[in-house]
Amino acid sequence: VTISSEIRRVAVLGTGLIGTSVGLAAARIGITVTGWDHDAEVLARATANGSLASADGLERAAADADLVVVCTPIADVASTVARVLRAAPDAVVTDVASVKGAIVAAVAELDEGRGSRFVPGHPMGGSERSGPEHASASVLDGVVWALAIGPDTDPAAAALVEGFVAAIGARPARMTPQRHDRLVAFASHLPQVASTALMGLAATEEADEPDILLLAAGGFRDLTRLAASNPALWGEILAANRERVAEAIDRFVERLQVLRAAIAEGRTDDVVRSFDDAKQARLRLATKPTVRAGVAVLQVEIPDLPGALAGLTAVMGEGDVNIEDLQIVHSPEGGRGTVHVTVAAGAASGASEVLRGAGFDPIRLA
Amino acid sequence: VTISSEIRRVAVLGTGLIGTSVGLAAARIGITVTGWDHDAEVLARATANGSLASADGLERAAADADLVVVCTPIADVASTVARVLRAAPDAVVTDVASVKGAIVAAVAELDEGRGSRFVPGHPMGGSERSGPEHASASVLDGVVWALAIGPDTDPAAAALVEGFVAAIGARPARMTPQRHDRLVAFASHLPQVASTALMGLAATEEADEPDILLLAAGGFRDLTRLAASNPALWGEILAANRERVAEAIDRFVERLQVLRAAIAEGRTDDVVRSFDDAKQARLRLATKPTVRAGVAVLQVEIPDLPGALAGLTAVMGEGDVNIEDLQIVHSPEGGRGTVHVTVAAGAASGASEVLRGAGFDPIRLA
Repeated sequence: VTISSEIRRVAVLGTGLIGTSVGLAAARIGITVTGWDHDAEVLARATANGSLASADGLERAAADADLVVVCTPIADVASTVARVLRAAPDAVVTDVASVKGAIVAAVAELDEGRGSRFVPGHPMGGSERSGPEHASASVLDGVVWALAIGPDTDPAAAALVEGFVAAIGARPARMTPQRHDRLVAFASHLPQVASTALMGLAATEEADEPDILLLAAGGFRDLTRLAASNPALWGEILAANRERVAEAIDRFVERLQVLRAAIAEGRTDDVVRSFDDAKQARLRLATKPTVRAGVAVLQVEIPDLPGALAGLTAVMGEGDVNIEDLQIVHSPEGGRGTVHVTVAAGAASGASEVLRGAGFDPIRLA
Repeated sequence: VTISSEIRRVAVLGTGLIGTSVGLAAARIGITVTGWDHDAEVLARATANGSLASADGLERAAADADLVVVCTPIADVASTVARVLRAAPDAVVTDVASVKGAIVAAVAELDEGRGSRFVPGHPMGGSERSGPEHASASVLDGVVWALAIGPDTDPAAAALVEGFVAAIGARPARMTPQRHDRLVAFASHLPQVASTALMGLAATEEADEPDILLLAAGGFRDLTRLAASNPALWGEILAANRERVAEAIDRFVERLQVLRAAIAEGRTDDVVRSFDDAKQARLRLATKPTVRAGVAVLQVEIPDLPGALAGLTAVMGEGDVNIEDLQIVHSPEGGRGTVHVTVAAGAASGASEVLRGAGFDPIRLA
């Protein structure tokens, strides 16, 4: 096995949004990219603009590649990886699935000793769109890209994938497959389950109490926004990470029960202490890693009229203040709107001045 | 006891943000308003602009009032209501606290038969600011205002408060104190507890796994935003509604455990069915009651640069499209931003056209 130290040719298997975006990002830095998809019509759309070459078969796509990126649906990843490891004996192979342990195990069963060339990956971002027509070379810019490297991974293969991820503009982060799956269980899968459970519970209660959602204000909306995600995709992800997700749910339930006991027994000091710890942790949580050192949140009231937000964002733009995040916090019914604008902490006083100069009355919350 | 059918004089006890806003809204429609606060300095700030008269004592403020609105901190509400019922034998009394059952019970113990003139209330909105200087007559415009009316409430007193709430621009909604407390336990208190528990759990895990928040994307942020709320205030609210909150947590835990079992046992069809039910319920949930009949969510990509949002909101304003909600959905690191813009369903195609005309590429998600 000869692992290239330089990447000249990349094959992308599965040319949906992520696969095509990986291909476009590689083509952007001068790499020759060949795409393949089991659906010929999807492949035609992915290669229509000429940036990606089209291969008529998985093996042909992989044949000359230094690196093969498997971007198929999660259920097909392990078998596709194993096929590529056989078909392209010198290629390094990576994937982009959201769960890693189950795929590593399945590949180990199928690969007959070739698995050291497989470097599992997971870009922690992308787009909620789907299909190659929404792909773009910039979709993965700056995204944290987990590389799930185990003891059997060839170090040269790991270095090759790490270099590729950085070269196309993302941020590689090495961790074991087990650690990856545990971290995403807490940071991604549990929030999804909690949101779905809360929305489902409210919908059940609503059958008896139609007014329950009349009283549901902004906080309830925040908590249940994720519940509108794709059910089939989540069914697959949760099945593939079932043990870690079950553990995360157990820890969450324990924590809810500790809080429940403190509330039910009137131990208000304990309740306040828990709330205070969580508040401090939330304030430390950056809205984006680039501003992790500190962000500020400004609350601004605007009339609920066409163009009202435009006034706010226009003065911020003219004042050269970058808005890191912006959330409309409505009163339960129209009439006016409250907006939370997040800016880098260092930009907060400038942003407040700019807003006040334009007649707004910002309050710094955090 | 003679209950007025017309409100000429209102007393506001507790001139913080809500109390002063109620007073200003009443003054706006020609009612004479007298304020009182146990903190003379707060009262001076509330009455500085001349819209509210200042009384030097709770009893004096209440003496001539047709309606007394108690806006003190929750711990002082019941004793204040009882004092007012004694001091002003013809006045109707209401309050604005977030929990009703405990206050009704405490007033019943203290009031010696005068409680039929007490009509408990709870405006489901307001502002996260505090202090009279952030009060405004419009803070409560359009807000749903629960009136917790029990069997002992005098119907004329209930009608008086209901008329007052509507006259100052809010939306009265009658329900029993028990039902109010049960509904807010699910729609408001449980989301707060869930958010705090999730953030606390992630902070604990972070001690072992510093990278956990590196993998926390927009969904985690949505779920934990509420965790930054005021701990002392929530300690009070949860203590006052402890039984209902405990019941809501129990129901939530049951639901999490049902999902946990389906995930752990690989019953993916059951998982997908739960997710699908929750998704449908979330899509039915209006972003605001005024657009409950249907909203549309457009996803738009914008560069992560000062002024980028301004371009988007400016064209919406120029195109006369009202933005009902707007959420920045970042990739985990900067470089570009994805924005979800919510508009009334009937305005969706117009909004899409306006955006496309300005070079954006909106995708309708819902």
